Amino acid sequence: MAKIPVGVLGATGMVGQQYIALLANHPWFEVKYAAASPRSAGKKYKDAVAGRWNASGGDYQKEVGELIVGDANDLSQAAAAFKAGNCAFVFSALEMGKDEIRALEEAYAGAGIPVISNASAHRWTADVPMLIAEVNPDHVDIIPAQRKKRGWDKGFIAVKPNCSIQSYMTPLYALIKAGYEIKRLTVTTLQAVSGAGYPGVPSLDMIDNIVPYIGGEEEKSEQEPLKILGSIKDGAIISVTEPKISAHCNRVPVVDGHTACVSLEFGPKKPSIDEVKKIWTSFKSLPQELDLPMAPKQPIIVREENDRPQPRKDRDADKAMAVTVGRIRPCNVFDLRFVGLSHNTVRGAAGGGILNAELLKHKGYI
Amino acid sequence: MAKIPVGVLGATGMVGQQYIALLANHPWFEVKYAAASPRSAGKKYKDAVAGRWNASGGDYQKEVGELIVGDANDLSQAAAAFKAGNCAFVFSALEMGKDEIRALEEAYAGAGIPVISNASAHRWTADVPMLIAEVNPDHVDIIPAQRKKRGWDKGFIAVKPNCSIQSYMTPLYALIKAGYEIKRLTVTTLQAVSGAGYPGVPSLDMIDNIVPYIGGEEEKSEQEPLKILGSIKDGAIISVTEPKISAHCNRVPVVDGHTACVSLEFGPKKPSIDEVKKIWTSFKSLPQELDLPMAPKQPIIVREENDRPQPRKDRDADKAMAVTVGRIRPCNVFDLRFVGLSHNTVRGAAGGGILNAELLKHKGYI
Amino acid sequence: MAKIPVGVLGATGMVGQQYIALLANHPWFEVKYAAASPRSAGKKYKDAVAGRWNASGGDYQKEVGELIVGDANDLSQAAAAFKAGNCAFVFSALEMGKDEIRALEEAYAGAGIPVISNASAHRWTADVPMLIAEVNPDHVDIIPAQRKKRGWDKGFIAVKPNCSIQSYMTPLYALIKAGYEIKRLTVTTLQAVSGAGYPGVPSLDMIDNIVPYIGGEEEKSEQEPLKILGSIKDGAIISVTEPKISAHCNRVPVVDGHTACVSLEFGPKKPSIDEVKKIWTSFKSLPQELDLPMAPKQPIIVREENDRPQPRKDRDADKAMAVTVGRIRPCNVFDLRFVGLSHNTVRGAAGGGILNAELLKHKGYI
Amino acid sequence: MAKIPVGVLGATGMVGQQYIALLANHPWFEVKYAAASPRSAGKKYKDAVAGRWNASGGDYQKEVGELIVGDANDLSQAAAAFKAGNCAFVFSALEMGKDEIRALEEAYAGAGIPVISNASAHRWTADVPMLIAEVNPDHVDIIPAQRKKRGWDKGFIAVKPNCSIQSYMTPLYALIKAGYEIKRLTVTTLQAVSGAGYPGVPSLDMIDNIVPYIGGEEEKSEQEPLKILGSIKDGAIISVTEPKISAHCNRVPVVDGHTACVSLEFGPKKPSIDEVKKIWTSFKSLPQELDLPMAPKQPIIVREENDRPQPRKDRDADKAMAVTVGRIRPCNVFDLRFVGLSHNTVRGAAGGGILNAELLKHKGYI
Repeated sequence: MAKIPVGVLGATGMVGQQYIALLANHPWFEVKYAAASPRSAGKKYKDAVAGRWNASGGDYQKEVGELIVGDANDLSQAAAAFKAGNCAFVFSALEMGKDEIRALEEAYAGAGIPVISNASAHRWTADVPMLIAEVNPDHVDIIPAQRKKRGWDKGFIAVKPNCSIQSYMTPLYALIKAGYEIKRLTVTTLQAVSGAGYPGVPSLDMIDNIVPYIGGEEEKSEQEPLKILGSIKDGAIISVTEPKISAHCNRVPVVDGHTACVSLEFGPKKPSIDEVKKIWTSFKSLPQELDLPMAPKQPIIVREENDRPQPRKDRDADKAMAVTVGRIRPCNVFDLRFVGLSHNTVRGAAGGGILNAELLKHKGYI
Repeated sequence: MAKIPVGVLGATGMVGQQYIALLANHPWFEVKYAAASPRSAGKKYKDAVAGRWNASGGDYQKEVGELIVGDANDLSQAAAAFKAGNCAFVFSALEMGKDEIRALEEAYAGAGIPVISNASAHRWTADVPMLIAEVNPDHVDIIPAQRKKRGWDKGFIAVKPNCSIQSYMTPLYALIKAGYEIKRLTVTTLQAVSGAGYPGVPSLDMIDNIVPYIGGEEEKSEQEPLKILGSIKDGAIISVTEPKISAHCNRVPVVDGHTACVSLEFGPKKPSIDEVKKIWTSFKSLPQELDLPMAPKQPIIVREENDRPQPRKDRDADKAMAVTVGRIRPCNVFDLRFVGLSHNTVRGAAGGGILNAELLKHKGYI
Repeated sequence: MAKIPVGVLGATGMVGQQYIALLANHPWFEVKYAAASPRSAGKKYKDAVAGRWNASGGDYQKEVGELIVGDANDLSQAAAAFKAGNCAFVFSALEMGKDEIRALEEAYAGAGIPVISNASAHRWTADVPMLIAEVNPDHVDIIPAQRKKRGWDKGFIAVKPNCSIQSYMTPLYALIKAGYEIKRLTVTTLQAVSGAGYPGVPSLDMIDNIVPYIGGEEEKSEQEPLKILGSIKDGAIISVTEPKISAHCNRVPVVDGHTACVSLEFGPKKPSIDEVKKIWTSFKSLPQELDLPMAPKQPIIVREENDRPQPRKDRDADKAMAVTVGRIRPCNVFDLRFVGLSHNTVRGAAGGGILNAELLKHKGYI
Repeated sequence: MAKIPVGVLGATGMVGQQYIALLANHPWFEVKYAAASPRSAGKKYKDAVAGRWNASGGDYQKEVGELIVGDANDLSQAAAAFKAGNCAFVFSALEMGKDEIRALEEAYAGAGIPVISNASAHRWTADVPMLIAEVNPDHVDIIPAQRKKRGWDKGFIAVKPNCSIQSYMTPLYALIKAGYEIKRLTVTTLQAVSGAGYPGVPSLDMIDNIVPYIGGEEEKSEQEPLKILGSIKDGAIISVTEPKISAHCNRVPVVDGHTACVSLEFGPKKPSIDEVKKIWTSFKSLPQELDLPMAPKQPIIVREENDRPQPRKDRDADKAMAVTVGRIRPCNVFDLRFVGLSHNTVRGAAGGGILNAELLKHKGYI
């Protein structure tokens, strides 16, 4: 079977690089088009990323290194690639103003090119699904309504949530799915610097230091789960109103891997600690059933050691696509405490995006 | 005025070193006796700490470097120093088994030598005050009962709480004192490696990593505040039962300075964010009124920048004795969120111990 | 073909773990016996390494996790494993006193169990080869003399040099082999903390700091190359006397990967910079010709970017077995300057040991 | 005595901040004028540095925080400050193109405002002294010739060398002054990130990593010592031709403090290791004789421990103005090996500049 040609927008940035790295040996997809800002456009990909390659997923393929980088703002270049059969859809890892990204992603979709995006621009667009493949795979079913409303034929937009929530969102969902309502929670994140891209966080802020603030991150952490847990009604995704979430987001001197310390309150029905562990260990969802290439075999890994998960030791679990949880214990204030960890640029960004693409391919949207 | 001669037990460990460093130019006290484990005993102090001096407070005094280290287990050596007028009281920074410390500190007190301790051994002894000089200075008044009950004449034991709570305990107290009851709170700490002593945390655990666990630390963080906020009754300190506290304690790659992310719930009466800031900025207590040498002028410093406090930039505020708070904002789940920071081996250990000694001196107990 | 069963001595230490990790899917060898200190002996391997697993090469195999750890000091346990067909030879990553290791390794060899060692104990034993498979594979030919002299039948001892020299030794050799005599060199190393094992270097020494000293490392760096470049004569390896080497060894906050800054002086015949690059890029040796499983395809990788090699970005090149060199330029004082880098616990330790075993297998010694 | 009012150009950058911090309680000088790029001009100083204050020397003075930042490119603003008696001379910590700095510094000098500069623009101008106050204080005597040639009345330009050479230049000079010619040396530096300013080095390059390259730094390290050791002839400073220097410059994850590993060759006359230590320990120069406020009491501190100097532990020695040396030992290839360390933004930048100003004041040039 011939591989599906894909394009990567924002291909030279941190998440773009990770897409390139992870797609290097993908069984279904193959990067044939790479676009970035005008600054990189016209250069060979290998020259555009020289001195700033930071993807944990490994190196880029030789062939990709030789691609001439397109200008992501110039839709006609992507359209030409599309027409030439070099780009059936694009992964968007664009880094520019929200409004520009929103308009640009719509333009691509309008030109018939599906957009699977990491950017936050369309996360709150009512007819755009914000997908975690194991949590709300059914939200892809809004795409027909999206296309119809906008008069798009083959194009569509699907997005991912913020990387900061990936370390606890699937565990929360597994509990909810098992019948345990979650009323509210506090979460403190210790986030890796790769989440800020390159050059990103200055080393003067990360040697012998932490920074207890990441712009916009707490708001995203508190609100995005509500849409992800929502349901489709009349061509829009309606958010739920619970759990109430309060987030403290910190930047720490870690390359990759976001850690989250969570305290949560259940509704009247409360599982035991053992039940929680059983629910998480046995949790599987559609990507596992379909055995999608990027899907972790076990989406949630429970560690029993009292000092795990740790970023350097657990972020790469199951192709860096699993969420590792540990320190599962009762909470003095609420019901349950735990620590969750996931790889922010793989599970939380490019890897999650690829898994979404695999899901969308399976569902026939690409 | 001649300075009061003091001894330091556990003088070669991390906290012991910090005592030595901070007492280098103290206006009231002067180190004349240093004791440690048998391994160091008999050596010159400077030789005993060679290659392992890590005090942030600066270097030791030449004279202290020349002291012959005593054996802390050998009470007769301290008694001799006491008799020779070289040790009016001791700071205990002992690092050994809890039971041994408990017994040893009692033996010193029984021998007439007041013990001002950093160790956790006596924190839950009902007639031993666990002091933060700005929060519960009146707990020193239990000393007469302690002496009477135990048949001690001049000796007594007073202790400090754990370093992990110092970054938020004074702010909590300031709010309570201003009339705002606190019902419960979740706190996530990001703690510096100096808290684990030397050699302490292996660098393999702290490069590109964090460790979401510190043995015993969460229990201390949850329980010690309850005694500190308690009151004396019938020769014992009776703990309060609120606030309920749930703690997540993490080790992060920071040399000095513990950061705490706090979400708290008030009772029915709730201050505005502005009131909170005003309460904290204007908070003073007995050490400030008495202008004790080690007391920070302003115990709680409020920073308005959205990315402060940060360990490297704020830990040294006001001789490393102030608590710096920032990111004061409403909480989605409870009422108030903030980040607190203090220097763990100064405010949270040796500096706090010295301030306690100054208070006890003022009150006439030493 | 059935795999050859191997034992690992010192299996729970840093290098021992790396052996276990790297042998997980080895085509020829399979770990069937693991021994360590009495402290670990009797435990399951997974329990013995719980909380201290740090191998960069990945996780241990499930089957190895279930092995009951033997006591490395108890030769009879290894002998039983040998007899039971579970241990055709051992990798020694012992961490104990030099004299004990020397005696123990000889005892194993005397019992008919070949010892392929990482320890420094036998590096200067005249009839023991100190191997870098690409540099002095012919030194294995001393084994018959070693066996004969010691009255050993099947057993023998072969060792590896220190990890600090692996980042420049193969590049030096490639130049020498190409006909360019090297008279002397200065080398400054920036060495990773994994080289010191676990717990190893305290984090208090590695946050916002470097340590310009590693005990014994400079001597090894200066002397070991002379034996490696030596030749066999009358059953002993005779060292060369040049190049003269002056080493400065530093510990830096890097997990894995030793960097070396080298300035060297050629003899009268001096290659151009371009020739140097060509020699290094085209260098292959016996392991490549034999296509041994652990051999890097290209032992020396030349990077042209001016800021490479870097530990995090280059240490894993070609299964972490390649040496990456960069900044190849003339020297103001000598003739040539460059920076070399290799993975200290793979190329410089366990991986290099496995490659030596592959070579010895090929040569029929195991 | 009224303090001399001074201006700081580039006052918001890393070195400019350090000037502000170190001048906070200076006995002779007082900052009355601060200028920076147009981006900061017009703001209060405290607002211009909010979120980017990184000076190790402490906080800025309240009064300086309230200064309105001038535009450093607009000479008329400085001239007005000069006229108003708020700026007797300027410290230049400008960060812009070399040609612009060169022209701007000349314009200030031409307007009668002496310029004491950290920038590299005028380091190779033949009539501009490049000063290390302990090494070549007599180079200030070129100022009359400089003024005459350029037709300047009171203005002049004096500069500092690069921060990377400060960790070994004074030790080298002390040996030369004691009669020991130095023929050549290799030096490998491990340089702190503060040397690159803020934001400077990305944290992605400094977590679990080092970078073996700093643009332009090796050239400066090799050439600047030759001018500093030179002598004045016919209104120009004539460089010496020895020692030949070969430098490897590395960036390491250290906040402040450059470490240098040096191997050097003496001329025919060679001191013993003990003599070297004695020369360094007893070295004093003009700043010490004059007891200048910023001068370290002992410019070179010799540490005997085998693991010192270390950046975090030694950089602050003697107001961060001393050079600490250690590991003094024979060299296998040359004659002498040692490790030198100094604080790059104090001794190597702002502190060194202030000391130069003190010297120039003493000599009557300001």
